[in-house]
Amino acid sequence: MASSGTNARRDPSGLATLALRTSRRTELINITSEIQTLVTEAGCSSGVCHIYVPHTTAGVIINEGYDPDVVRDMELALDRLIPHKGDYRHAEGNSDSHIKVALVGTSQSVFIEHGRLGLGRWQAIFFCEFDGPRKRDVRVKIVAD
Amino acid sequence: MASSGTNARRDPSGLATLALRTSRRTELINITSEIQTLVTEAGCSSGVCHIYVPHTTAGVIINEGYDPDVVRDMELALDRLIPHKGDYRHAEGNSDSHIKVALVGTSQSVFIEHGRLGLGRWQAIFFCEFDGPRKRDVRVKIVAD
Amino acid sequence: MASSGTNARRDPSGLATLALRTSRRTELINITSEIQTLVTEAGCSSGVCHIYVPHTTAGVIINEGYDPDVVRDMELALDRLIPHKGDYRHAEGNSDSHIKVALVGTSQSVFIEHGRLGLGRWQAIFFCEFDGPRKRDVRVKIVAD
Repeated sequence: MASSGTNARRDPSGLATLALRTSRRTELINITSEIQTLVTEAGCSSGVCHIYVPHTTAGVIINEGYDPDVVRDMELALDRLIPHKGDYRHAEGNSDSHIKVALVGTSQSVFIEHGRLGLGRWQAIFFCEFDGPRKRDVRVKIVAD
Repeated sequence: MASSGTNARRDPSGLATLALRTSRRTELINITSEIQTLVTEAGCSSGVCHIYVPHTTAGVIINEGYDPDVVRDMELALDRLIPHKGDYRHAEGNSDSHIKVALVGTSQSVFIEHGRLGLGRWQAIFFCEFDGPRKRDVRVKIVAD
Repeated sequence: MASSGTNARRDPSGLATLALRTSRRTELINITSEIQTLVTEAGCSSGVCHIYVPHTTAGVIINEGYDPDVVRDMELALDRLIPHKGDYRHAEGNSDSHIKVALVGTSQSVFIEHGRLGLGRWQAIFFCEFDGPRKRDVRVKIVAD
């Protein structure tokens, strides 16, 4: 089936890779519809959808997708909690980005039910950029029941 | 089989939904025995138990279930780390709840061994309420080997 | 097959347990090669590798494995974020350790592709000791496609 809905690449083992381009240093991006398209294209009715970020300065969370102020508050709170500038040794100047990833995590798993991501009513999947702008990948594996 | 041990609903695809009622704004609730009952009722001997919270102001962790002071220290530390009142835009007044969920996470996976949750000796599964009191759901999917 | 590459024990259900010895109170230890050895020994070409820490004062993350300064910055940042000494009730003096685990998490899942852990170029798997030095276990379950 053509991946008309997304720009995802698929390798022979069934993994799909979604390409993103971020535009700010700290930026949460709603990728729910892209992930749902991959589930639909895979034709999976029931199972688990594993979402994995193969980077060390970006992660993935599930949180509210309705009010954009929630996302903005989250970005600011993470930047306050782990400041960009600080008493860090790592020479690249992005230790805070690595630490933020350690806190939010690099993967999420969502159930698939009746061909749809089993998200709660207000939930969305957010790619978390912590050292942008960059080109990024998200890897998705769908395990059918 | 009757779900006599829990108040869980099951849908035809095998997912179980556990209903909870929380009583405080920030409250960690030990749900280990309810999850174990679901594993037992499913008759699964070996596999993975996925626990998923479909809310955006509640999460789930695995931590010490023996001394209630650990849980209380954790509740207070999270409230200190991400204060309820602050420089937030989101009009509902619960931005801190969303941020706490981003930190602790919305799902956990535990191995099933010989029909039991493969928790460590001191580990328990805690539902994490960050915007209670409320009625809440926890969704559980058991994938047998 | 002999577990010559690791000191892992295996139980009949296919779970492997990796034994570690930590040397500092807060210490991130790269366990990628030990986990890869378990994947290789299992002969799994494609699937999911679940890594689970059965302790309440230790966790596991995926982060940069190249520059040791990143790990050191992360250890210091977590100790600053959740101080060892504070207004805690738990009598054992390690409430901070429990709280750190709540933030970083007790499990990770990594795809297996062509017999290898599907980590990103700079990613490594780190056991996170937060109350060492101690003897610790890491449990690994490999689910083939």
